[in-house]
Amino acid sequence: MEVDKVVHLPRLSRVAVCGGTHGNELSGVYLVKELLKAKNVMKEDNDDEERPASVLMVLSNPWAVQQCRRYVNTDLNRCFTHAALSGPVSKKDPYEMIRSKELNALLGPKGSPEAVDLVCDLHNTTSNMGLCLVAYSDCDWICLHIFRYLQASTTVPTRSTMEIGPQPHGVVRSNIYTTMKHGVQHVLDWVRFYNSGTVFEGGFVDVYTTVKNMDYPRDSETGNITAAIHPQLQDRDFCPLRPEDPLFQTFSGETLRYKGKEPLYPFFINECAYYEKGIALSLARKRRVALPRIRARAEQEQQANEQGFASEEE
Amino acid sequence: MEVDKVVHLPRLSRVAVCGGTHGNELSGVYLVKELLKAKNVMKEDNDDEERPASVLMVLSNPWAVQQCRRYVNTDLNRCFTHAALSGPVSKKDPYEMIRSKELNALLGPKGSPEAVDLVCDLHNTTSNMGLCLVAYSDCDWICLHIFRYLQASTTVPTRSTMEIGPQPHGVVRSNIYTTMKHGVQHVLDWVRFYNSGTVFEGGFVDVYTTVKNMDYPRDSETGNITAAIHPQLQDRDFCPLRPEDPLFQTFSGETLRYKGKEPLYPFFINECAYYEKGIALSLARKRRVALPRIRARAEQEQQANEQGFASEEE
Repeated sequence: MEVDKVVHLPRLSRVAVCGGTHGNELSGVYLVKELLKAKNVMKEDNDDEERPASVLMVLSNPWAVQQCRRYVNTDLNRCFTHAALSGPVSKKDPYEMIRSKELNALLGPKGSPEAVDLVCDLHNTTSNMGLCLVAYSDCDWICLHIFRYLQASTTVPTRSTMEIGPQPHGVVRSNIYTTMKHGVQHVLDWVRFYNSGTVFEGGFVDVYTTVKNMDYPRDSETGNITAAIHPQLQDRDFCPLRPEDPLFQTFSGETLRYKGKEPLYPFFINECAYYEKGIALSLARKRRVALPRIRARAEQEQQANEQGFASEEE
Repeated sequence: MEVDKVVHLPRLSRVAVCGGTHGNELSGVYLVKELLKAKNVMKEDNDDEERPASVLMVLSNPWAVQQCRRYVNTDLNRCFTHAALSGPVSKKDPYEMIRSKELNALLGPKGSPEAVDLVCDLHNTTSNMGLCLVAYSDCDWICLHIFRYLQASTTVPTRSTMEIGPQPHGVVRSNIYTTMKHGVQHVLDWVRFYNSGTVFEGGFVDVYTTVKNMDYPRDSETGNITAAIHPQLQDRDFCPLRPEDPLFQTFSGETLRYKGKEPLYPFFINECAYYEKGIALSLARKRRVALPRIRARAEQEQQANEQGFASEEE
């Protein structure tokens, strides 16, 4: 990759901001409700130049929000596989299976040209992860450039769905709400700059790639957990965990140590919703990724590209 | 009250430690399970002199614990009124109404001579309340002496049910678990000293008496909250709140101030379970209470007393 090359990427014409995918993660719930109420916050009432893109605000799981629960029947965030979305609809399906198809009709169909170009899905965690962007590829230049822009624009520790914590589920803490609000505003600002032709310079960004998940120690008969995250590890998300570092403290007071062979970076440490999934923490490798210069295709170029005339670099 | 008088109070022969009254407050759940597993922790296996009292460990709401929810049908902690306990039993009753009668049979009957002498009911809160004892009277000398003993024996900020936070519901944090474990050990130590005839010196203790509860600002049409606890108030439980201090921050960013006439002490600030009860925080007045010297009645004296020969002071 030569430094002076500019990678031209698709424009982000339609953006969705989703809150309440988990009904008890309240920052996103109240932020989406607030944005729906005061659409002018995002400058949508201003003239066209200021308009970032078509921004759709969605409350993803309104029934779970109403009950202030993560989900009603099953975790909505696990209902977006192609298999789940393409199956037949039945009234007997779990509520979230029905809702995922509704969302696919609104924001998708997933993977099709009609789908929205960017979804910013808002989550909270009880882990001390700060403002954290989760991307599904380490060569998704748009997500990584947005991540780099957030790092430069905010005072919060930004790492690479927008996941913010620590905040107990079922609670809204004003500082976490405000961090999320500023994060969303910065994402939409970035999209506006991008769509208006700004060239974003190349550079480097650190990403954390999941290696594995670790469960709590459990009683082999009852399946109950027998230890909690060690106090020396609690709240130290994204700090290196080295072999022999304290990992768990049993309920009788014993320290259990990390037996891995290499230092790794823990995250989602003691996330409430992951007890039922058998995850006490996730472990990641840290890697520096080189980002290319990027800019959005011009409208003409985009049309040509959509007709099959690709122009990858200039 | 003369300083050299000793108030003789009933012995505490039977003590109950209850966890999981709310099924998602996990410190008490795991502590009671641990104590049931390792009864020797409380020295019950040692010789009679060391035995603190008959200590009953109870998991109050096992069905809610299994589901990791506060309650299944209704809040168990609101099912112990004399009216609720004395009503007829029906299979159609909410689960917690049935369970409260079972607990009353096990630990009561409430108010009768057969009832246990002390219940230590373990709770967690998302509020930053430290280790906090809730008593139902400010002349309950036993609770207040235990409170004073805990203040002297532990490094945690002890205030006057044992309520410990901050900890998200559905999560166990090792530091909070350990604080609760030490708190319970100190309570049981105190009971052992007391039953063995120790005279506890008089003195003073600060108590916080509830004046009123305050709800969140709400939308008059939807009933939804429109503001969160102000970041400058969050986590400042038991610190004075003065007229015009920041109280709430609306979701649009506006600061709402405290309009009371006198400084009061907030607690249960932003407790998760109180959103549904319409409580954003409670406000208390602080008061210094003079404690008398106390000691337990000797066994003989207790028997005489139970036969109607009261001997209040010596």
